[in-house]
Amino acid sequence: MHQEVDVLVSEVGPRDGLQSIKRVMPTENKILWISALASSGLREIEVGSFVSPHLMPQMADCATLVREANKLENLNVLALVPNLKGAELAIAAGTRKLTMPISASLEHSLNNIGKTPREAIEEVSRVCGLRDSTSVEQRPTIDIGISTAFGCTLEGAVSEDWVMEMAGLLAKAGADSIGLSDTTGYANPSQIKRMFRRLRGEIGVEKMAGAHLHNTRGQGLANVVAALEVDVATFDSSLGGLGGCPFAPGATGNIVTEDLVFMLEAMGLHTGIDLDALIATREVLLSGLPDEVIYGNIPEAGLPKGFTYASERNVT
Amino acid sequence: MHQEVDVLVSEVGPRDGLQSIKRVMPTENKILWISALASSGLREIEVGSFVSPHLMPQMADCATLVREANKLENLNVLALVPNLKGAELAIAAGTRKLTMPISASLEHSLNNIGKTPREAIEEVSRVCGLRDSTSVEQRPTIDIGISTAFGCTLEGAVSEDWVMEMAGLLAKAGADSIGLSDTTGYANPSQIKRMFRRLRGEIGVEKMAGAHLHNTRGQGLANVVAALEVDVATFDSSLGGLGGCPFAPGATGNIVTEDLVFMLEAMGLHTGIDLDALIATREVLLSGLPDEVIYGNIPEAGLPKGFTYASERNVT
Repeated sequence: MHQEVDVLVSEVGPRDGLQSIKRVMPTENKILWISALASSGLREIEVGSFVSPHLMPQMADCATLVREANKLENLNVLALVPNLKGAELAIAAGTRKLTMPISASLEHSLNNIGKTPREAIEEVSRVCGLRDSTSVEQRPTIDIGISTAFGCTLEGAVSEDWVMEMAGLLAKAGADSIGLSDTTGYANPSQIKRMFRRLRGEIGVEKMAGAHLHNTRGQGLANVVAALEVDVATFDSSLGGLGGCPFAPGATGNIVTEDLVFMLEAMGLHTGIDLDALIATREVLLSGLPDEVIYGNIPEAGLPKGFTYASERNVT
Repeated sequence: MHQEVDVLVSEVGPRDGLQSIKRVMPTENKILWISALASSGLREIEVGSFVSPHLMPQMADCATLVREANKLENLNVLALVPNLKGAELAIAAGTRKLTMPISASLEHSLNNIGKTPREAIEEVSRVCGLRDSTSVEQRPTIDIGISTAFGCTLEGAVSEDWVMEMAGLLAKAGADSIGLSDTTGYANPSQIKRMFRRLRGEIGVEKMAGAHLHNTRGQGLANVVAALEVDVATFDSSLGGLGGCPFAPGATGNIVTEDLVFMLEAMGLHTGIDLDALIATREVLLSGLPDEVIYGNIPEAGLPKGFTYASERNVT
């Protein structure tokens, strides 16, 4: 279904967003929200994390969410799995796309998952083994985003060579696709172009996944433009900019799905998403998380007068 | 002095910012603020507007500001002149760079300056005549930004062909340089690239001025990245994102100087500006306009750990 769009917008709010909020959104509200997001035209949603409910009670209903989201049409259902145990649960629930937390920064990796980067890669290898032993009907794909790829709030600069070495090791471990994550909002457009060019050289275009970018320093959409210049075609974002990384101090701020979709469509890149419907899902989110502060310029300013979608302009 | 930097950041806060605020900042505070901005390394500041003080009492002290700012080192002092009368006052005060309000949208032009676009171009022609009859020592340069070049909140889409025709007419009228302004926050990165490429073709690189961009729909820095791709090397911005256009409803939001400078320096583009000093000028601004709401991600999030300026990295 990726082929139907020019750029795939992967909504991470129900996982990355809700994970960073202490309050627990009731399961029925999550289902309503995920359905509304899918109805607006989003093709991919990360619905939750198969992490221990003792660590993150917000994510305890992930199996239910996967089962419900699997009923929706035209939707890639994605879930995060921290380890082999999580992957077993995810596959049992019917998750067809798994993502795993891998960090290029040693300190961030230890803080986030209690493993060194190399130990985390070994875990990816084990999960790939599980994938390969799973029946074809249930077999998931495994997508990895390398966190802190552009710098770390704890360590500062992260070696670009090491990030590329990790990408190579992850490909060798069997990951289906590998992307880069600006977990800390440190990335700049020049670095984005340089790193994604290198990534493609390292693992090949068929294994290259997308960009997970933050707007902490106001650079989120600027970095998207840079990534588009080097043919990145998948971007993570979250509705209302919900969430960030709880283990990277000060690193709040996923890019806002509404503003991202507006930019892409205005640029003539078809996303399949209806902006009015997408903006309306903010109310669904807020009905499950009353008074939560959410962000976004387009919901505030409105669409330009005479705005047309990419698909309306491409008709020849 | 433009040659000393890779990108010229032109601060418009004292004019575009203060003009949009009803309260009047005392002249002594403006002088302190402009001095602080120049000390942080800004090479160009638009200090005010030679508009009638009856229309805009906020701008009544423009002549004083020009005289004071002319004493500062390494600074291009810029002022807006709405018409020939304003240009006479500006030249008498010693202003060496004038900018004039020209709008591509008929309705915006009538609302903003009470003239049609063609009448406004005739006024530019008269001001260019005045420039040519001014002694060499006092002769100013005349820089025009075409407002609503990317769309208008009143009219919707604006003809790109008409914008280019205007640029040609303005060049013929004698303008020294011509840039494009996204007065309404309607521009998208693809449009920015297309239009600045066309502008260069239309008037030649030596007459091409910069981009004046707004962040109304969150696209400000994304549009800067697109403009950099086509070699635009001057950007307007305002400290704390102060201001917008009072005659384009909802179109608040100049791009934030602090975030722009951070992005450029992070990309390896030398601006000559010290970010800590620049951020410190926010307090100087606020001391003259207590409790004014200002914006900016970098002042909030802080510089990345281990951040280096372009000039530190370019040492070979």
